[in-house]
Amino acid sequence: MDIVVQKFGGTSVGSIEKIRNVAQRLMRTQAQGKAVVAVVSAMAGKTDQLIQLAHEVTETPDRREYDALVSTGEQAAVALVSMAINSLGGKARSFLAYQIKILTDEAYSKARIVSIEAGKLMDELEKGSIAVVAGFQGVDEAGNITTLGRGGSDTSAVALAAALGAEVCEIFTDVDGVYTADPNICPAAHKLEKISYDEMLEMASLGAKVLHTRSVEIAKKYRVPVHVRTSFSEEEGTMVKLEDEEMEKYIVTAVNYNRNEAKLTIAGVPDVPGVAAKIFEPIAEANINVDMIIQNASSDGMADLSFTVAQTDAKQALKILQEIATTLNAASVSVDNDIAKVSIVGVGMRSHYGVAAKFFSTLAQEGINIMMISTSEIKISCVIQEKYTELAVRVLHEAFNLSSE
Amino acid sequence: MDIVVQKFGGTSVGSIEKIRNVAQRLMRTQAQGKAVVAVVSAMAGKTDQLIQLAHEVTETPDRREYDALVSTGEQAAVALVSMAINSLGGKARSFLAYQIKILTDEAYSKARIVSIEAGKLMDELEKGSIAVVAGFQGVDEAGNITTLGRGGSDTSAVALAAALGAEVCEIFTDVDGVYTADPNICPAAHKLEKISYDEMLEMASLGAKVLHTRSVEIAKKYRVPVHVRTSFSEEEGTMVKLEDEEMEKYIVTAVNYNRNEAKLTIAGVPDVPGVAAKIFEPIAEANINVDMIIQNASSDGMADLSFTVAQTDAKQALKILQEIATTLNAASVSVDNDIAKVSIVGVGMRSHYGVAAKFFSTLAQEGINIMMISTSEIKISCVIQEKYTELAVRVLHEAFNLSSE
Repeated sequence: MDIVVQKFGGTSVGSIEKIRNVAQRLMRTQAQGKAVVAVVSAMAGKTDQLIQLAHEVTETPDRREYDALVSTGEQAAVALVSMAINSLGGKARSFLAYQIKILTDEAYSKARIVSIEAGKLMDELEKGSIAVVAGFQGVDEAGNITTLGRGGSDTSAVALAAALGAEVCEIFTDVDGVYTADPNICPAAHKLEKISYDEMLEMASLGAKVLHTRSVEIAKKYRVPVHVRTSFSEEEGTMVKLEDEEMEKYIVTAVNYNRNEAKLTIAGVPDVPGVAAKIFEPIAEANINVDMIIQNASSDGMADLSFTVAQTDAKQALKILQEIATTLNAASVSVDNDIAKVSIVGVGMRSHYGVAAKFFSTLAQEGINIMMISTSEIKISCVIQEKYTELAVRVLHEAFNLSSE
Repeated sequence: MDIVVQKFGGTSVGSIEKIRNVAQRLMRTQAQGKAVVAVVSAMAGKTDQLIQLAHEVTETPDRREYDALVSTGEQAAVALVSMAINSLGGKARSFLAYQIKILTDEAYSKARIVSIEAGKLMDELEKGSIAVVAGFQGVDEAGNITTLGRGGSDTSAVALAAALGAEVCEIFTDVDGVYTADPNICPAAHKLEKISYDEMLEMASLGAKVLHTRSVEIAKKYRVPVHVRTSFSEEEGTMVKLEDEEMEKYIVTAVNYNRNEAKLTIAGVPDVPGVAAKIFEPIAEANINVDMIIQNASSDGMADLSFTVAQTDAKQALKILQEIATTLNAASVSVDNDIAKVSIVGVGMRSHYGVAAKFFSTLAQEGINIMMISTSEIKISCVIQEKYTELAVRVLHEAFNLSSE
């Protein structure tokens, strides 16, 4: 049995008309001889409505009840998709997390999948049914409903594909694949035919919204090929898969940017052991994620320390930093929202020299100053002034020959 | 542990404000030293919305998926009520049918409860939590979601009260109890302090919408006292309970009416064995419920046959009757929508003579013609012209001394 998992997000099931289209797409795939498992998100807007209801009750809703509430969106969607298939002459059955035991840990609203009982789904597929599974939800050992966090339906889909040994997990979305850069600001950008798990992981953590990070981790672990494609046509998208030799030939696969970070600086702190801990412990305790960090020591035994956080956390981080500044007798504290992070990603970097140098010189030629740098084996990121974002993306795209294909 | 089950219908949880009121009411009951189980319906209007979505997909939705869809309304409601209790400083936990195994048969949309595992709820109550259970839903042996039919939350509540050995099942509704007659047309009507299960069963099947028939059957079987009361005040309502001697002292407990039936007549059919079967078999096959039947034989070996059905079924029944008329060579077929059924109910009838005679003479004194009659041990019903409905209710209410209290 060749099993295909097809995941449809909220916009793909945003109306009854669209639900009918999804039903037809699933039936076409089945008609091609595949055993089909659908994973469906809540109808567009539905989850936000439910979240708002919860917040009308209280600002801090009980987390167990919150998950029980928001998971109803997916339950309604799978029932409607199954109805649509059945009404079109097909055969379908919806499944909720408890019915196929999508077991998770107990971390409400950010649960992680532990296991899935594939047997019941396999029986259903063997009977010729399309199995329509509620995304985003799980159950813990005690049978409580959990949810996987926003974007969690991608994770549901990939985990199901792994559990069922599916030949591919297709993620239908409103973009038609993964691009070498954002086509809106870089007209030379083109769609990638394939990309490695590691590159996709880097891109997901750099803020690319195509796939949920956790779903790529699972895909990598279980070697599930993930096909990112559009729900609006039959066109092929981008395959996220195991690295191959061809991928390594290219130094850089894509250029990314992120304008949603802010840079905070605390200047004139004593350059002695323990100071960084004093600064970052309270930040961590406030559940604020720090991305890049840079420290400039000066000759007078004092240092300036800068770091980036999500702009949504900047206000709170600044407040914490001001308190620390008083304790440490620091000279000043400041925040800069007008920054952008520009990155290049590519597995080919591992075996090529001079990539960072080329990155820096390309920006320098345009007079773009680099404020912070962060690298991994397959990624280089720089923080620059926000106004240069588009220019930086375009010149990097050109410099690393991404425009030529 | 004194357990109280409190059931709230859709209008009682129709807004976040009302949900908060329900939460407070449950907490007050708990503060009185009771272990509290809440049974909650979907927010007013929600179920209709879901049904409409299903019908936008197809006119004949798959029944399994239909139940999976409509049951989301109750799931959202119990989560919100639990959140509200927790946010007000109380302790609550929501439960869905699968979590406490409200086992039903497999009849989607009209499932009957087979059993409930009370253990998990008992544990929760012992921990001091208010258990908030989704009404209307069950699961079959295979774990599929079923629903109990409209009004099924009453049945959920009474079945839970039976399974938990609750001292009372309180049904909160938008009326403040069961009345001797509809106060809107009979100003002398008053609220009953108590009523027997059998009387309530008769009244439910006569169309009184206070309680779901099945819930009264279960209450009677397991002797669960059911308290019908308003959610808008602390006022006592009507207790539905085991018959006692005091109840028997009154000949009649209440007067009811129903204007939602139609009378069909097929005239001039041969008065020979087997004719009635030829008429009612196809009606039954069309799932049309026949209420009263009357046959007038004439001297020429022909008979006229009349029966009543719900007005919503009248059109279809007429069509079937017309086909039969052709086969039987009947003289004519007609339908009359301008009828009403007026009934008196009371356990005291069993031990009192002349009740029917008094009923008939009371109507006769007002010039009201009786078209059909049906009786049980504790009920007399007559079909009359619809225009006399209010008058008939008032004179019967007066004649049987219901106005005097």
